[in-house]
Amino acid sequence: VSHKTINELHPADIADIIEQVDPASGCAIFAQLDTAQAAETIAEIDDEDLLEELLKGVADGEISAMLAHMDPDDAAAFIGDLDQQRGDALLQLMDERDEHAIKRLLSYQENTAGRIMTSEFVALPGYAKVCDAFAAIRRLEEDFESIYYVYTVDEAGALTGVLSLRTLISAQESDRLQDLAFRDLVWVAPQLDQEDVADEMTKYNLVAVPVCDGDRRILGIVTVDDALDVIAEEHDEDLRIAGIGRGDNATGESTHMLVWFAQRQYWVLIWALASAAGAAALGALDADPALILYPMCAMPVALLASGGMVSFVKNYFLEHDDREGTQSAYGAFLLKTTVVGVVLAALVLACAYLVDDIALPDATQAERDLFLACFAAAAAVTLLSAVGAIGCLRLLRWRDEHDLNTSGTALGVISTLISAVLFTAISIAAVIAMA
Amino acid sequence: VSHKTINELHPADIADIIEQVDPASGCAIFAQLDTAQAAETIAEIDDEDLLEELLKGVADGEISAMLAHMDPDDAAAFIGDLDQQRGDALLQLMDERDEHAIKRLLSYQENTAGRIMTSEFVALPGYAKVCDAFAAIRRLEEDFESIYYVYTVDEAGALTGVLSLRTLISAQESDRLQDLAFRDLVWVAPQLDQEDVADEMTKYNLVAVPVCDGDRRILGIVTVDDALDVIAEEHDEDLRIAGIGRGDNATGESTHMLVWFAQRQYWVLIWALASAAGAAALGALDADPALILYPMCAMPVALLASGGMVSFVKNYFLEHDDREGTQSAYGAFLLKTTVVGVVLAALVLACAYLVDDIALPDATQAERDLFLACFAAAAAVTLLSAVGAIGCLRLLRWRDEHDLNTSGTALGVISTLISAVLFTAISIAAVIAMA
Ligand SMILES: [Mg+2]
Ligand SMILES: [Mg+2]
Ligand SMILES: [Mg+2]
Ligand SMILES: [Mg+2]
Ligand SMILES: [Mg+2]
Ligand SMILES: [Mg+2]
Ligand SMILES: [Mg+2]
Ligand SMILES: [Mg+2]
Ligand SMILES: [Mg+2]
Ligand SMILES: [Mg+2]
Ligand SMILES: [Mg+2]
Ligand SMILES: [Mg+2]
Ligand SMILES: [Mg+2]
Repeated sequence: VSHKTINELHPADIADIIEQVDPASGCAIFAQLDTAQAAETIAEIDDEDLLEELLKGVADGEISAMLAHMDPDDAAAFIGDLDQQRGDALLQLMDERDEHAIKRLLSYQENTAGRIMTSEFVALPGYAKVCDAFAAIRRLEEDFESIYYVYTVDEAGALTGVLSLRTLISAQESDRLQDLAFRDLVWVAPQLDQEDVADEMTKYNLVAVPVCDGDRRILGIVTVDDALDVIAEEHDEDLRIAGIGRGDNATGESTHMLVWFAQRQYWVLIWALASAAGAAALGALDADPALILYPMCAMPVALLASGGMVSFVKNYFLEHDDREGTQSAYGAFLLKTTVVGVVLAALVLACAYLVDDIALPDATQAERDLFLACFAAAAAVTLLSAVGAIGCLRLLRWRDEHDLNTSGTALGVISTLISAVLFTAISIAAVIAMA
Repeated sequence: VSHKTINELHPADIADIIEQVDPASGCAIFAQLDTAQAAETIAEIDDEDLLEELLKGVADGEISAMLAHMDPDDAAAFIGDLDQQRGDALLQLMDERDEHAIKRLLSYQENTAGRIMTSEFVALPGYAKVCDAFAAIRRLEEDFESIYYVYTVDEAGALTGVLSLRTLISAQESDRLQDLAFRDLVWVAPQLDQEDVADEMTKYNLVAVPVCDGDRRILGIVTVDDALDVIAEEHDEDLRIAGIGRGDNATGESTHMLVWFAQRQYWVLIWALASAAGAAALGALDADPALILYPMCAMPVALLASGGMVSFVKNYFLEHDDREGTQSAYGAFLLKTTVVGVVLAALVLACAYLVDDIALPDATQAERDLFLACFAAAAAVTLLSAVGAIGCLRLLRWRDEHDLNTSGTALGVISTLISAVLFTAISIAAVIAMA
């Protein structure tokens, strides 16, 4: 790219470069762009903090000029990320038509079809002719690029059919659209989740899908380039919840693997520290310090049961991410997790009795009681984790609905810490009760 | 859909229905389809076993008629899944032009741009006029639907520019293509991995991307509907490796959660069984059975270190799935995992010394030695797991290159079992050596 000036690059490449260099250089590059390039580059940058940085020194008049250059959906995404007051101020500066188009999109919830649709579409009455469709396409603004279909509507404005540009080109100029249109067409409601929109487009091999109101009047269309962005975003979100971070942040490679292990195997540290603390407490109480080995044996079960629960909830969340009838499913989920919790707790107790029988035949009754009490504490924490899973699921869904990203690791650490405290409390109580 | 006959449904819906009902009903539905519908339905079904089932009773002549109806890329995907002999037999039955088109795609590796491209594109010399482009579009076969762009080529046949149908419609019929074409266009090599093709299309907002040879001659184009399928397939693959199964198989919900726990928390069972076995062995040796508690304490570290290693490798594989320069990166990976293994092993030993100091002041020297020996065994297994990670990574990559799906759970269970055997062997050796 050495022979190209920055303004000749594709906006997606400029956005990549700005995202990769340090913020100061990014601002310097951004400042060199003309308004149209700047607008298209902004539409390709997802990082809100970086956007804020880039636009810090830019006058509101200039920003609103950029917004006017953007597709309304990209402009709405940009304004939706600002606080209300700033957004309103920028909208005020735009001409009424653009302002209205953006405000209409903003009236739909984030992450729905209505929010990501564009008003760049051509819809004509069915009795119109192919030459009328050509004329309508020629009348469109030049930067409305993603025109792949022409839609037909009836007298009431309701969608009746679709024609590809290829069909139009192959037809006679005097043919009526209604005689050529494909009538069995797919459309979506503005409230539909953006992921479901992308799924429909994938399923039916569409490059654009109309968004219609209850009377089947076209409100806009969602184009496949935006569906691809939605899919990429949701894929990253899923992997993050699954506990896998795509290396999109600039963390150095060398420390990465240790950080990664720290993020997953933190329970070993919690285990060692809790064991040492428990041992120290027992030492202070002048109890038999060897008895720390019993809680130490049982604790991993408690810590990992809660870690496993969090990871089950993440899995369930990702697998049942169909955003339909979730409210009614909570009762069934609670029932299911409770049953599993009871089974797992029973298994833990059974294993403890097995080992106790085989391994501790010469131990005193008090020692055997303590051994079993520690595993009973672990079984109790296992059951509590399973019952508490529903809270974790509601938290994840609530955050997803409010478009907050959730770190699977943070959830895991928090629940493991809670389990460690619970387990330590229960087993220390048992030790004291038996001392 | 009650008022529609099966032949009026979209092939994607027919495929969904066939995938959801039992195989016998699926075959019955499939048998009702005409050749064109059957062909399009086959292209939408990904499950190889189901396809085999559906086509069991269908004559080769009929199947090759269906293949002739398919886009060449879908036909190539279908034949690529068959064994060589069957595939050749079906190709023989097709007319020479279709056979040639499919064979050309099959000459490229699976999961590359060359394999998923289609020959449905229009390329004309730059001096051609808009009316020539229209004529070329009209000459295309009717079922070539995904025409969004016209490409221009120079005298040598090298790609020089691209025009959207919209640009053509807005232009004068006598305009020359070279005066309207966008020249700064994106193309890919036929060897490029299909995921990278999809990434390029996402980045540059393309609905089709040309696939060119070294001389920049167009071999075909990849259309966005196929890119969407690639993305969906790779997303599911990533989640499966991350340990999350999208519930696309028909397993009953009720057993699912217990199966899921069994798949993750299997180490608890391995731990309990190994502990019981160890205790029984010690009992037979007439050694102090209470000493089983030391290995029992240390074993989770060994089991979970290898589980963590497998899950790190899966993470690394997904994160560095850029399929470039992977060979040279193995040395660095081995170095990195070894360093981390040494650090983790040192941590395990340090924790063991800490607990030993605090918790076992009154223990005999032999007991303390055994306690430390058990944790030394766990540290050794931790280090071995880290060093062995590279084998696991090579296996995953080898399987991905050969398009074999890998179950993250199976990898985890196998490595945990190996660790349990290693740890038990090392610690029993220590017990015997000290007895
Ligand atoms: Mg969502
Ligand atoms: Mg498809
Ligand atoms: Mg858009
Ligand atoms: Mg976009
Ligand atoms: Mg999602
Ligand atoms: Mg989201
Ligand atoms: Mg497919
Ligand atoms: Mg791949
Ligand atoms: Mg994009
Ligand atoms: Mg195709
Ligand atoms: Mg396809
Ligand atoms: Mg992949
Ligand atoms: Mg693959």
